[in-house]
Amino acid sequence: MTSARLAGVLAPVVTPLRRDFSPDPERYVHHCKWLLANGCAGLAVFGTNSEANSLSVDERMMLLETLVQDGVPASKLMPGTGMCALTDSVRLTAHAVKLGCAGVLMLPPFYYKDVPDEGLYRNFAEVIERVGDQRLQLYLYHIPQVSQVAITFSLIERLLKKYPGTVAGLKDSSGDWNNTSAVLDAFAKSGFDVFPGSEVFLLAGLRAGGKGCITATGNINPAAIHRVYENWRTPGADALQAGITATRCVVQKYPMISALKAIIGHWGHDPDWTTVRPPLIELTAEQQQALIAELTSRGFDMPALAR
Amino acid sequence: MTSARLAGVLAPVVTPLRRDFSPDPERYVHHCKWLLANGCAGLAVFGTNSEANSLSVDERMMLLETLVQDGVPASKLMPGTGMCALTDSVRLTAHAVKLGCAGVLMLPPFYYKDVPDEGLYRNFAEVIERVGDQRLQLYLYHIPQVSQVAITFSLIERLLKKYPGTVAGLKDSSGDWNNTSAVLDAFAKSGFDVFPGSEVFLLAGLRAGGKGCITATGNINPAAIHRVYENWRTPGADALQAGITATRCVVQKYPMISALKAIIGHWGHDPDWTTVRPPLIELTAEQQQALIAELTSRGFDMPALAR
Repeated sequence: MTSARLAGVLAPVVTPLRRDFSPDPERYVHHCKWLLANGCAGLAVFGTNSEANSLSVDERMMLLETLVQDGVPASKLMPGTGMCALTDSVRLTAHAVKLGCAGVLMLPPFYYKDVPDEGLYRNFAEVIERVGDQRLQLYLYHIPQVSQVAITFSLIERLLKKYPGTVAGLKDSSGDWNNTSAVLDAFAKSGFDVFPGSEVFLLAGLRAGGKGCITATGNINPAAIHRVYENWRTPGADALQAGITATRCVVQKYPMISALKAIIGHWGHDPDWTTVRPPLIELTAEQQQALIAELTSRGFDMPALAR
Repeated sequence: MTSARLAGVLAPVVTPLRRDFSPDPERYVHHCKWLLANGCAGLAVFGTNSEANSLSVDERMMLLETLVQDGVPASKLMPGTGMCALTDSVRLTAHAVKLGCAGVLMLPPFYYKDVPDEGLYRNFAEVIERVGDQRLQLYLYHIPQVSQVAITFSLIERLLKKYPGTVAGLKDSSGDWNNTSAVLDAFAKSGFDVFPGSEVFLLAGLRAGGKGCITATGNINPAAIHRVYENWRTPGADALQAGITATRCVVQKYPMISALKAIIGHWGHDPDWTTVRPPLIELTAEQQQALIAELTSRGFDMPALAR
């Protein structure tokens, strides 16, 4: 992995699927390049919003290789590599490091609940030891409302102490600003890069020492979100933040992944984009119309998305 | 898969691991054969208690092939094949059918929470359609406190209606007898085989039309549990049930998987059996001693387990 750490707006890239639910590499590369050209500093591919856990390990590896081969810089990539099975996490993480990715974003193993921190520590430590590569930059992924397994302060502390050059930061998708703020207070000064999991907390996060955000709606609104990142020290920052928060609030009235795909399908004139893999379902026609209408009425656009 | 459906006591077989956390096929085959020789009617390999979700797809396939090659009858096997990724579920299920397994026990995709029944229906329907084999006997796995994704009555109803010869039953690990009882009332007469996920409900389940149980402690106490199954219509059934419930209550004071492995390690004179894969951790020495002491004081034994 590169020595330059990612900062700014990262999108957990939604994964386009063909009608048979297979990943569509062509649409995927196109969307990734559009994101990088429109404000994203990096791509957190294979996140929650990527339906990553609905993809097999082989499907993820194929997609990651395709991106790099097709000209998406590995130095911009932070793939999700945390799986329930230690052996899968090691395989995906080693693969990402080998391709030169900037970092990896690791969920804890999420099947077993109420597991002790000691077990989670062993999981992450085993991955780091087995990958055994100084280039590895590991970001912990805290999304307790989905994974049901939290990344605790004591776990962060212990991992940072043992692997200071490797444990690089955390994405906090808890939606709980008190937690994000406390993580920033506790660890940001140790060179631990904290990314709130929503642009709603972008400005507050930057003011408290955060590095940007990794946000679902980065898939559709990257330029405006990036504008907050660029201008966060200026007097107009709060107004810019209010604008992106308002757009977020429209989108998150709906199931997020299906809504993002509907938006990309609409503004990209590519209705097949709406396909999601079970157990998710696409928006109803009524939901889609209402979502597009509300965004349109707000002047929302996705420039030059058409293929 | 065979036409004879499994009934009786099934163990969700714990998976022995070497010290490097790799699966140990030799100990695995030995334990499976011991279970079948000591009261188990079938083996629900790759269940929650098998640490199945801590194993990769390839690790599971290797273990299943080893069992069949080494003489464990496929007609006794009900492997867990429900994964987060549809493609993985299809691959594991097709593999199990090809090997001649009696059935498969399928978790719903468990990463995304609050998913609609329509999405879960599509998941199971896609697996059935893609496997496309009349021999498939699919058992749904309801364990909401772990998976956080429930198998609802309307989902069962819809799947049974569409795939009556394939959707064979349900393991109810909710621990909620009201749910098990209601599922039995609603579906047992349609040839839908219900297995409570604990022997605590074995007798009550049999009296209400259940087919047996699939239970963690089947790994260590199969003969006594089988005795309840064999004698459930006799006057002594309640006393037998009280005995197995009491043993269960001792074991479940501890984290179940680690406790089962400690018990097998102790009575099998094979301390390496205690290894669990992260994020789980083994019992402390104190816990292990207390567990073994309490079981011993109750006259508990695992005959002829020594290798």
